[in-house]
Amino acid sequence: MPPPTWFTELEQGCHGLTIREDRVLVDTHTSFQRLKIFENAALGRVMLLDDVVMLTERDEFAYHEMLVHPGLLAHPRPARVLIVGGGDGGTLREVVKHPEVERATLCEIDGEVIDYSREFLPFTATAFDNPVSRVVVGDGLEFMRAHESGFDVVIVDSTDPVGMAEGLFRSPFFRDVRRALRPGGIMVQQTESPFFEIEPWMDIFSQLTSVFSSVRCYGAAVPMYPSGYWTFAFAADSTTPWEHFDEERAARLPSLRYYEPDLQQAAFALPRFVREMVRKAGAHV
Amino acid sequence: MPPPTWFTELEQGCHGLTIREDRVLVDTHTSFQRLKIFENAALGRVMLLDDVVMLTERDEFAYHEMLVHPGLLAHPRPARVLIVGGGDGGTLREVVKHPEVERATLCEIDGEVIDYSREFLPFTATAFDNPVSRVVVGDGLEFMRAHESGFDVVIVDSTDPVGMAEGLFRSPFFRDVRRALRPGGIMVQQTESPFFEIEPWMDIFSQLTSVFSSVRCYGAAVPMYPSGYWTFAFAADSTTPWEHFDEERAARLPSLRYYEPDLQQAAFALPRFVREMVRKAGAHV
Repeated sequence: MPPPTWFTELEQGCHGLTIREDRVLVDTHTSFQRLKIFENAALGRVMLLDDVVMLTERDEFAYHEMLVHPGLLAHPRPARVLIVGGGDGGTLREVVKHPEVERATLCEIDGEVIDYSREFLPFTATAFDNPVSRVVVGDGLEFMRAHESGFDVVIVDSTDPVGMAEGLFRSPFFRDVRRALRPGGIMVQQTESPFFEIEPWMDIFSQLTSVFSSVRCYGAAVPMYPSGYWTFAFAADSTTPWEHFDEERAARLPSLRYYEPDLQQAAFALPRFVREMVRKAGAHV
Repeated sequence: MPPPTWFTELEQGCHGLTIREDRVLVDTHTSFQRLKIFENAALGRVMLLDDVVMLTERDEFAYHEMLVHPGLLAHPRPARVLIVGGGDGGTLREVVKHPEVERATLCEIDGEVIDYSREFLPFTATAFDNPVSRVVVGDGLEFMRAHESGFDVVIVDSTDPVGMAEGLFRSPFFRDVRRALRPGGIMVQQTESPFFEIEPWMDIFSQLTSVFSSVRCYGAAVPMYPSGYWTFAFAADSTTPWEHFDEERAARLPSLRYYEPDLQQAAFALPRFVREMVRKAGAHV
């Protein structure tokens, strides 16, 4: 047998995660990026895009549940939901758990991510054929420019803010999102880890604060993302994460493994150093 | 130049953390274990015991603040505090921030850990010479057997529950701790990550629950420990983390980077899968 191959993802060039590739299922270049899916004995299936971990079967529930439920539960009736990115389907899977959702539109730039996810990631790709789901293969930046006032919640489930996804972390995109929200609308975005890349992290919150009147940060544990501590932005103009929160509605959500109703408050209680970064960026603490 | 050396710490044999060793400062065998201290360009100084990361200069604040402050702030007057383990000094550094502490005893089995920490980890070894500090070099199990009714808070800051430290996670030790607590006393223990080693994690809480009438779990983000999500047990017979909590007292603690008064509540709001593990182990949720 050949020696095992290990995938390593470094932070700051000198520390990071390493994962043994026990069986490679896909290793290809799509029109946009390198896509690799392999199996690991402990983590299950692992998807990489451009050599960055997008998800592992073992811990994706933490990221996807915490990206979706705080925002949707903050809206009294999230009938129209847009997901920008999220081609693996995990975010869509969580969105369609909410009976208030009448249409869940997913706009993913790379259709091959969806195709490979449907084939190899059946645990996330559960809802593409759900009656409320609409899939658009296209550029999220262009999609947002073309849409006005149609969504109650917009969820940005992107790759890291470098290269292709960079525009999804800048104020022109945020202005388009804001325009596309119906009154009382909410935007939620994955905002990386605050532990190692301080300036880029603060810049996301500064850009958000320049567009939305109320921007808050919350956190969750996602072991296979850098530092294992991940943050999310909750942005709105006229509501908070708690104004419309209904604990009974939250308790009715099926098959949760991470989200708990008391996290709707507690996830916004940040470690002091994060709170200070949020404050310096001008967002709510 | 020789190629760089990388330290790798695996979980479940097939994934883990990797850290470049930019400069090795110490690599020795004490009477008890292998001790290594090296520098990494991003993480600063890193201490390993038996090839497991004990701390990095970059993120030790998260672990030490969250091990110490929730427990001490739950006690109305923590005059006598015992630390079992903690030879690097980081826990002691946090304990002596509390003006209520009249005596902080640290019982560390491996005196060489203290010696090397004083020499190479000046950022944690700040309080060994503090007037309230007492250092005992000895076995924590024996120390607890010999002491009765002397402490308000006992903090167990041990290595992982294998080998030398295993007894610090078992009910006979917990019974000795309970006997050594004054009325209203509290024990806090580091309890590893709940993400990957499910059964050993639950066993710690089962053993605690067999001894203390009230056992709770709280969490914090510690990037350089496995999974980046770390848990702690709060065990007591006649109090809770909140009964005696005084927000103004918390706000007066100097130079905090992780602990915030609102984490006194929020850190106990657990992800659902952890909450279910706690419940199955018989502890409070």
